[in-house]
Amino acid sequence: MLSVYSDSHFMKQALQQANIALEEGEIPVGAIVVCENQIIARAYNQTEKLHDVTAHAEIIAITAAANFLNSKYLPDCTLYVTLEPCVMCAGALQWAQIGRVVYGAADDKRGFMRFGKTLLHPKTKLEYGIMEEECSTLLKTFFEKLRK
Amino acid sequence: MLSVYSDSHFMKQALQQANIALEEGEIPVGAIVVCENQIIARAYNQTEKLHDVTAHAEIIAITAAANFLNSKYLPDCTLYVTLEPCVMCAGALQWAQIGRVVYGAADDKRGFMRFGKTLLHPKTKLEYGIMEEECSTLLKTFFEKLRK
Repeated sequence: MLSVYSDSHFMKQALQQANIALEEGEIPVGAIVVCENQIIARAYNQTEKLHDVTAHAEIIAITAAANFLNSKYLPDCTLYVTLEPCVMCAGALQWAQIGRVVYGAADDKRGFMRFGKTLLHPKTKLEYGIMEEECSTLLKTFFEKLRK
Repeated sequence: MLSVYSDSHFMKQALQQANIALEEGEIPVGAIVVCENQIIARAYNQTEKLHDVTAHAEIIAITAAANFLNSKYLPDCTLYVTLEPCVMCAGALQWAQIGRVVYGAADDKRGFMRFGKTLLHPKTKLEYGIMEEECSTLLKTFFEKLRK
């Protein structure tokens, strides 16, 4: 049984966002920001719709969370995202001094971990592989459909 | 004499943007995007005003240029920015597949060049040190005032 505030519980919420992206024809990546066990931002990838490479789920979620808290720093927040953040998003998470990052599927090609954890703020905690299969299955489904 | 379409000419335009940031109490960084010798986007750092770490001049300029061209890729564009882009902005420039990046002052602490040119797209051309003194003087003036 999932406890209410487990990482899996929150990753499921990020997966819901990724599913919205999928329905809208976007690469299915979703993110949420949690502060004191409350979800303060939900976002999904919108790069196609907005014709904007910066409209990744994480960037939109960081902006929304900062807006909610009226603070550009997010040290008491956790970002849950279904896919390993890219270099751009890791850079944004570093500036935000986010407390914790939890991601699902790995992204060996574009993920920030090619450069190691140093791209994040030294105080940021990192967890990954949460609901990895569900997160990567969604992406595989999208890319398989694209090839047909 | 400056020719109309020289890098210095366009960097002066980016410096104008940085001056607006200075007037508004922001870290003075400005950027413009040029396509076929036409300025299609002008932006300055707005992280304080928007309480948003992602509101760097480059990110706003990329979004504005993509919006202008109705394309998320910018292979025929040059971004002029007064300060060496950070990792986040280099990541965004990579996704945008921007044709060329020209920056003024170096940023040894937060600049992307710590990781080398590989953070940019392989096809992106890079130039730096254009009007370096003017660009860095503006930043020094800002930080000196801040310390008083």
